[in-house]
Amino acid sequence: MTERFQQLRPALLEVLDNDGLLTGSDVAQRSDCWPGREPSRALAVMLPRNTTQVSQLLHLCHAAGQPVVTQGGRTGLVHGTETASDEIILSLERMTAIEDCNPQAATITVQAGVPLQSVQELAEQHGLMFPLDLGSRGSCTIGGNIATNAGGMRVIRYGMTRQQVLGLEVVLADGTVLDSMNRMIKNNAGYDLKQLFIGSEGTLGVITRAVLRLQPLPGSEQNALLAVPSFNALTRLLHSLNRELGGRLSAFEVMWQSHYRTVAVESGKHIPPLPADQPWYVMVEALGSEPLHDAEQFERVLAQMLEQELAVDAVIAQSRAQRDSLWAIREDIPSIVAAMMPPVSFDVSLPIEAMERYVQGVEQALREQFGERGKLLVFGHLGDGNLHLVTSVGDASAETRRAIEQLVYTPLQALGGSVSAEHGIGLEKRDYLQLSRTPEEIALMQLLKRSLDPKGLLNPGKVIA
Amino acid sequence: MTERFQQLRPALLEVLDNDGLLTGSDVAQRSDCWPGREPSRALAVMLPRNTTQVSQLLHLCHAAGQPVVTQGGRTGLVHGTETASDEIILSLERMTAIEDCNPQAATITVQAGVPLQSVQELAEQHGLMFPLDLGSRGSCTIGGNIATNAGGMRVIRYGMTRQQVLGLEVVLADGTVLDSMNRMIKNNAGYDLKQLFIGSEGTLGVITRAVLRLQPLPGSEQNALLAVPSFNALTRLLHSLNRELGGRLSAFEVMWQSHYRTVAVESGKHIPPLPADQPWYVMVEALGSEPLHDAEQFERVLAQMLEQELAVDAVIAQSRAQRDSLWAIREDIPSIVAAMMPPVSFDVSLPIEAMERYVQGVEQALREQFGERGKLLVFGHLGDGNLHLVTSVGDASAETRRAIEQLVYTPLQALGGSVSAEHGIGLEKRDYLQLSRTPEEIALMQLLKRSLDPKGLLNPGKVIA
Repeated sequence: MTERFQQLRPALLEVLDNDGLLTGSDVAQRSDCWPGREPSRALAVMLPRNTTQVSQLLHLCHAAGQPVVTQGGRTGLVHGTETASDEIILSLERMTAIEDCNPQAATITVQAGVPLQSVQELAEQHGLMFPLDLGSRGSCTIGGNIATNAGGMRVIRYGMTRQQVLGLEVVLADGTVLDSMNRMIKNNAGYDLKQLFIGSEGTLGVITRAVLRLQPLPGSEQNALLAVPSFNALTRLLHSLNRELGGRLSAFEVMWQSHYRTVAVESGKHIPPLPADQPWYVMVEALGSEPLHDAEQFERVLAQMLEQELAVDAVIAQSRAQRDSLWAIREDIPSIVAAMMPPVSFDVSLPIEAMERYVQGVEQALREQFGERGKLLVFGHLGDGNLHLVTSVGDASAETRRAIEQLVYTPLQALGGSVSAEHGIGLEKRDYLQLSRTPEEIALMQLLKRSLDPKGLLNPGKVIA
Repeated sequence: MTERFQQLRPALLEVLDNDGLLTGSDVAQRSDCWPGREPSRALAVMLPRNTTQVSQLLHLCHAAGQPVVTQGGRTGLVHGTETASDEIILSLERMTAIEDCNPQAATITVQAGVPLQSVQELAEQHGLMFPLDLGSRGSCTIGGNIATNAGGMRVIRYGMTRQQVLGLEVVLADGTVLDSMNRMIKNNAGYDLKQLFIGSEGTLGVITRAVLRLQPLPGSEQNALLAVPSFNALTRLLHSLNRELGGRLSAFEVMWQSHYRTVAVESGKHIPPLPADQPWYVMVEALGSEPLHDAEQFERVLAQMLEQELAVDAVIAQSRAQRDSLWAIREDIPSIVAAMMPPVSFDVSLPIEAMERYVQGVEQALREQFGERGKLLVFGHLGDGNLHLVTSVGDASAETRRAIEQLVYTPLQALGGSVSAEHGIGLEKRDYLQLSRTPEEIALMQLLKRSLDPKGLLNPGKVIA
């Protein structure tokens, strides 16, 4: 325990409820990040219940020069909520109030610690939809979703988290409460300050409350799995479906053959809906409002795609159960992990037209460097330019990991790609940020950080050095 | 001509082409803002052709402490591009290159001086759509659209300009070129710096190039005018259409009776498609991909709305000509100006549920203060929370204007509304910013301004004092 924290502790305890400050083994029992193998090294965990407490705590920490790491559901994948031994944790896990759901305005107002799934469910009870959806929906929090600008499956239609946020309340490094709880879609009264905090991974302020925009709840849903003979067909298929379905296309999730074969066939956990002999497979989802018409049109459009040889085979889900079993293939991460032990995973984005060659290049480089041990599975959100690569080369030592990172990240620079599509930078990708950002961009990020958090106390060392 | 400019002039001339620097009467012939009645008072107009020149010019101005006002199409409505007599203008009117249109990626890359309409037309030639649309499409520029986060009719479906921007190139106050020309929908590699410049009205940097996102070109379009008996019916109509049309609803433009009566009936310029006896009228647009089905569904859904008494009468456009004549009523600003001479206009946003009472309150206050002379027309983008108010009280002196502004803006504060929905702040609304923004928000805006433009040389005095 540092001297600084010793001196600070009584004041923090005065702000928090009796059981609101965890220390010692209560901290070490927790983990900072997913999948939670390592105990947290932080000095303490603060558990405020409201914005006033957050403000008071940050004010105290600021005065004492105490670094603070904000944590939500701790489901991030880039060590963005990791702590060092001189840091304390500000966890929003007790700030779970849903303050208001206004169906007329199609908005919901929540504290930042509310799990994503609670927002989805409440919206649905009001005949509305919160379109953001992630595998970690039960654990991840709205505050974390916003702080990392989370993506997911339906970005192609509804955009990333940024697009779902109307208003924010943020506590700044010195404890100042910034109330930007706007509820309107249009508001050009000065700089749109909330944009600063969305996706800045807790380094510029602590998100405490939010106003979220809801969408009409779709009355129909169609799903299909398609087998696609070429990359050219794949991109044309995306555009044709997007056009022909008149805005209803809500997911276009591509699996490279290696991924489909590994999960659908070799895992033994699924009945393969299509043979694994084509180079690409796509899960397509469309959301609409007219069940009969939409199903008929979906079938007709897919028939056209087959006719135009943009796909060679297709399965349309005819029931909820069939829908779930098709999506289970795309979402079966455990089978990938099992097949690729020890897996080293990546989340990148790049222009669609460069994807085919990029993946070939990474595959070739893996083989050259690691021989037969070098394996690669690829899947992702093609319409968003977002690919997930899972590599396996036999070991996952820091050195090996570093070597694979070089293979995967370096070619992105020349392609105008990004080392992080939706996972963020955290600590894991910080050293690679310069591949996707110019020196001028990084200098501006540092300027913003210095301006908003001059003592460097909020989530220190994350995103930028 | 100031001494500073005298000394700076030879260096500026060296950067610019021969005819690239206007001074004297060439400047006075120009106007800074729409509708262009007053001559510009600026010292000079710089007309660069590319980013390098913009960077060199700003570098020189920065070194000399010379204030610069960036201008695009000068169609803004809040004096956001107005100049003072010690300022020089940086006009991007010669930076009109369309550098790339990539149908596969659905992106277009342009210099900032390209008119909006050119982008719309080029997109359409490639079977795509740039959804932003404004009355000033022929004159306004993409750079100006981005700098003001322009809105328009289709925000309800496609979002504001912010949502159409994938990447930006910006020249900072000291001439640094910030290349953030991202092309992907997903890119979470550090802070999303472009968001800082979108909607900041040229006060934080000069937007020189952009990568824009395009949408599929709709294959069908339906339009209708509806007469609505109550405000409650109006909001229920919005939600029902949004749900029933399955995402196809792309405009929901409301006219209060006074507006509809003035334009459709009293102007004598239109054949009224519906009698002017209902309190509200709505222009509805839906965009889809299946002409036959969509028309049939549109008709069926509107029939339902009539049956549920959410509307009492409706005209569906049966031809392009009929569509145009319906929209001509909504877009006939000259008839409003003529009827309301001298008009004093407003652009505000507020929660939908507060709109009816807000308008009644403004109307009553106008009558109380100005008696029978006090007139009010209201129309706007209801789905976005955005209303346009046109008032007329007999004169439009600065003092009267001030009195009307108080009436219109003051009640917004308690409602969580905004003094600017889509027009921005400029000079016109600067004194009212504090009604829509907290002191902490304004302090943060000032901090950003000081950090990015410490000498205060970019569009001085606009947005924040």
